[in-house]
Amino acid sequence: MAGYLRGRATEFLRALRLHRETGAGAAEDSVEAARALRRASRRISASLHTFQPVLDPDWSEAMRPELAWVSGTLALEHAYGARLERLLLALHRLSGAATAFPPAQEEGGAVTAPGATDRVTRTAGGPAGRPPGATDGTPDAESTARRLAPDAATARPGGSGRATATVPATGTGRLPGTPLPTGRTTVTGTAGVTRAAPATGTTVDRGHLTVGAAKAGALLDRQLTLARTRAHSTALQALRSSRFHAIADKVAVLASEVPLSPAASAADLVPLAAAARERLVDAVAALPLLTAGSPYNAEALIHGLSPDPAPHPQDAPWHQVRLLLRLHRYAREVLHAGAGADPAAERLRAAGEALDRHRDASEAAAAAAQAARTPRIAPATAYALGVLHADQRHEVEAARYAFQRAWQKDVVGTS
Amino acid sequence: MAGYLRGRATEFLRALRLHRETGAGAAEDSVEAARALRRASRRISASLHTFQPVLDPDWSEAMRPELAWVSGTLALEHAYGARLERLLLALHRLSGAATAFPPAQEEGGAVTAPGATDRVTRTAGGPAGRPPGATDGTPDAESTARRLAPDAATARPGGSGRATATVPATGTGRLPGTPLPTGRTTVTGTAGVTRAAPATGTTVDRGHLTVGAAKAGALLDRQLTLARTRAHSTALQALRSSRFHAIADKVAVLASEVPLSPAASAADLVPLAAAARERLVDAVAALPLLTAGSPYNAEALIHGLSPDPAPHPQDAPWHQVRLLLRLHRYAREVLHAGAGADPAAERLRAAGEALDRHRDASEAAAAAAQAARTPRIAPATAYALGVLHADQRHEVEAARYAFQRAWQKDVVGTS
Repeated sequence: MAGYLRGRATEFLRALRLHRETGAGAAEDSVEAARALRRASRRISASLHTFQPVLDPDWSEAMRPELAWVSGTLALEHAYGARLERLLLALHRLSGAATAFPPAQEEGGAVTAPGATDRVTRTAGGPAGRPPGATDGTPDAESTARRLAPDAATARPGGSGRATATVPATGTGRLPGTPLPTGRTTVTGTAGVTRAAPATGTTVDRGHLTVGAAKAGALLDRQLTLARTRAHSTALQALRSSRFHAIADKVAVLASEVPLSPAASAADLVPLAAAARERLVDAVAALPLLTAGSPYNAEALIHGLSPDPAPHPQDAPWHQVRLLLRLHRYAREVLHAGAGADPAAERLRAAGEALDRHRDASEAAAAAAQAARTPRIAPATAYALGVLHADQRHEVEAARYAFQRAWQKDVVGTS
Repeated sequence: MAGYLRGRATEFLRALRLHRETGAGAAEDSVEAARALRRASRRISASLHTFQPVLDPDWSEAMRPELAWVSGTLALEHAYGARLERLLLALHRLSGAATAFPPAQEEGGAVTAPGATDRVTRTAGGPAGRPPGATDGTPDAESTARRLAPDAATARPGGSGRATATVPATGTGRLPGTPLPTGRTTVTGTAGVTRAAPATGTTVDRGHLTVGAAKAGALLDRQLTLARTRAHSTALQALRSSRFHAIADKVAVLASEVPLSPAASAADLVPLAAAARERLVDAVAALPLLTAGSPYNAEALIHGLSPDPAPHPQDAPWHQVRLLLRLHRYAREVLHAGAGADPAAERLRAAGEALDRHRDASEAAAAAAQAARTPRIAPATAYALGVLHADQRHEVEAARYAFQRAWQKDVVGTS
């Protein structure tokens, strides 16, 4: 236990050092560093929670909210980026452009999009290059696209009209300390969507909904990029704050000496981990797993048009289980720290990933619904956002189904 | 075979007589009569198709398109009504009003909706009774609601403000010869939807999307009721046409004497029925059943935002299988006509119902997408239609899944 905590604290410090070194440098490393920071913070915080009785109570009580603040603040920027990525990929998929953006690229990384730059230029060219009927509504979104497209063109001299252009995918968790390439983000947003539109411009109907998808993408891009930029600034400020420095100092102490309570012994850990497991099992038992296990129950989209803009209340117990499952996983990590690989780890990770997907889809659906409340958007934009919202709610349902399957396997395997 | 055809012809004539007797009278009987007419026409037509070689070729060649015309013309009115019913119920479900309209009522019949009349009056009262922000856009839909609501009120004197009002559900296949109760249809359409909206009118956001659902319902109601009224007139004209009278005369002849080809014998029927089964099996083998069998494959919503307003091309093979399955079922009916109950009939019916659901959901999704192309609709309306479209496309996917399950059982059971 003490060894595990020291190990995580060392990881935290290593990630922090890496992050400071790469802050102004390579993007990949900086993202990796931020992820490692969050990862270590979560694990230390979870251990403090689960094994609280064997630790110095004052110290752990003071430490936990601080660590939660660190991981929460760092996670926000990543979350907005990933949400935008998810929604834009869904728009591509729904526009039948799935072949151009294969699902394998969903993980992030660079996407080679043939002809992307060419299409962007057309889109940014205004009404002339678009099917008629596209110019009503969403002046903001359009002007954004126009304003940003030249940036994208100048960022790659001679890029306009090239047959192949490498467009970096968004949302890989843009690292603090690196300027946000906003112009390129928009390229990814609009280029793939408008590709599906025939540039003939002969009929109004043919291009109608695709224009809606493009506008919806531009609107989401604008809103979520703004949110991500704000989260980025907040994260930067947080990492420079005296509050964060105090945490880093405490973690540095933890790396060498874990403040155990006087009466602690290694044998006390097992019942505490079992209690964490109990809490998880109880919470899962309260879930409507029977419904979730029968495919196409259409449960997640109920209230899809309800007037309440708050997040779906039906999602809350699932989010709760997600947190409890994480605590359980980390507690197992502590117990199995010296004992080689945990046989159940793989199954638990599958269940956890299903719940992560559940959370992501739930929040993406809420973002689409929120964007649809933007005043003065075009009907085609609102329609595309409606389809997108429903699509993400069905992802929620699919994730519940996946969790139910993983959980059944898990119970059979370990109980 | 001859006996089977004579039986169906007798049913046709009986239904026709019933229909003429009840034309201006009781609604239930008239719907039943129209359904029986379609049912008999389909079966005679299918038998002529499958067992063509044992029948007089000239006669059956002339007869089949005429019977297809009868059942097709009569089916249209029912289809529009059922589609409206399906879409309005989906809107209620998506608004979280499912408890007020239990799914059991989907079959039709009278729905007792407490307070329905009260709410309609409020909705028709205009901006005063609605949350602010509801008055922008869709002047047509609103004026329709206002225009129709008084009709509904006068149709039930003293109904306004009553605690309980019995509202007949729409779409049970409105019978030729009966005036369409358009006003009441709108009551069902808007009352259930607006019920979810808190009538406080304090915040804009709270009522926003529910207003969208109500407007979407009113828009669909207007468009599909118009289509149904047209189909109703067409069906009435068809039933009075000389073309129909010629068919009825031919069916009357068929009821007493089936024009078999000279070389026909009962033994020839089995290979012909087997050929019909072969065609079905081949068509099913070409379906992407493996994909359909894995839940939440999200296949049906691909191209959900594609610019092409035509029906989904991916649905066509399923529609084709639906027709072939029907031919197979009717061929089995002929073979088992004298031999008691067919053991496979139940399973085949389940598979057929899944494909019916597939067809209905596919066309309902197309209707929602079509309605979203109406010019000058409010964004909230378009958003609701987008959610509705995606919901119906997921119904399509669910129906494919159900068919895949039913078909696997069927193959295991009978092959």
